[in-house]
Amino acid sequence: MAIVDVTVIPVGTDSPSVSSYVADVYRVLQKYEEEGKIRYQLTPMNTIIEGELPVLFEVIQAMHEVPFEQGLARVCTSIRIDDRRDKQRKMEDKVERVMEQIKGQ
Amino acid sequence: MAIVDVTVIPVGTDSPSVSSYVADVYRVLQKYEEEGKIRYQLTPMNTIIEGELPVLFEVIQAMHEVPFEQGLARVCTSIRIDDRRDKQRKMEDKVERVMEQIKGQ
Amino acid sequence: MAIVDVTVIPVGTDSPSVSSYVADVYRVLQKYEEEGKIRYQLTPMNTIIEGELPVLFEVIQAMHEVPFEQGLARVCTSIRIDDRRDKQRKMEDKVERVMEQIKGQ
Amino acid sequence: MAIVDVTVIPVGTDSPSVSSYVADVYRVLQKYEEEGKIRYQLTPMNTIIEGELPVLFEVIQAMHEVPFEQGLARVCTSIRIDDRRDKQRKMEDKVERVMEQIKGQ
Repeated sequence: MAIVDVTVIPVGTDSPSVSSYVADVYRVLQKYEEEGKIRYQLTPMNTIIEGELPVLFEVIQAMHEVPFEQGLARVCTSIRIDDRRDKQRKMEDKVERVMEQIKGQ
Repeated sequence: MAIVDVTVIPVGTDSPSVSSYVADVYRVLQKYEEEGKIRYQLTPMNTIIEGELPVLFEVIQAMHEVPFEQGLARVCTSIRIDDRRDKQRKMEDKVERVMEQIKGQ
Repeated sequence: MAIVDVTVIPVGTDSPSVSSYVADVYRVLQKYEEEGKIRYQLTPMNTIIEGELPVLFEVIQAMHEVPFEQGLARVCTSIRIDDRRDKQRKMEDKVERVMEQIKGQ
Repeated sequence: MAIVDVTVIPVGTDSPSVSSYVADVYRVLQKYEEEGKIRYQLTPMNTIIEGELPVLFEVIQAMHEVPFEQGLARVCTSIRIDDRRDKQRKMEDKVERVMEQIKGQ
């Protein structure tokens, strides 16, 4: 299981607001979550997704296609992958582990 | 007010776990928050910070110094800035705005 | 054709130097280039790759696997995708276009 | 000396082409280079800059301001910092070191 954060930036939108695109990106995420393939979390800056890496690449590509489907000609997508294979971790474990460290000091 | 997300990756840590560094990074954030200069949020992949851009750069630099202070020789830090100046937005507004779009559809 | 830049950061390497991993990542790139599937360029900060998006995701995943194959337990990979579909562009066109703009001013 | 790569994405540009903004960003870089404060390199995906970290943050902020000065209301800037303090490295050393590793194998 890897965790990724993804930001999809539609370019040439005419307006500084891009929330309409984000709503359709959300539908992609919901579909994959309902199929039990990923878990995800919206944050003020990006979407964080947990799942098997090949599935995550599939989801990221589907998210990246959304603004093109809506008629835009350019999309800039930025992705960070954090992939740790010596132990199983869920998204919430990472924040918890940091909070424990903080309290332990 | 801009919003940024920041990931500090210590390189050459000997172990795949880096949560001890993150705890000290957290102390930096807490100090700036107590001074009323920023608001922040820990996520499973990064730290999201809201504040005036020059202050944010100062905070990011302080976060980036933490692993060096702990004896490491290399740090890779990754930053995304989202800066919108036609209206005031807080971190939580961005997620809310997307949720409204989703429900409105 | 999309263009991406990719940084693969092995975590827990014991040493701040990671160039041995980069050399094996290079072999992955060379294989795909010889098959005529991508064009790429090494820079001091990342690898820039040009190709069809599904192929690029395949290449990125292969690059990301390299440090695991060498025994590491954690890899952080960072990717930016720039995908423009209203016209064909090659990597070198983007820099040229900027240089023209600069001279034209 | 640290090395960074920077991508400035103007949002709400009306057109998918953003090269006019990049040209003005270039002027910022040239000014700092002429003052001997940085060295830089344009690539098809980003600008790579070498210099002292506090100077780099100053340059990045100046680059990020360019689209606002041209009337845009939103800018998304993405930055990767690679900072290694156990030895002096120049931008070109990083690529050379990888090429040596490749030939040595």
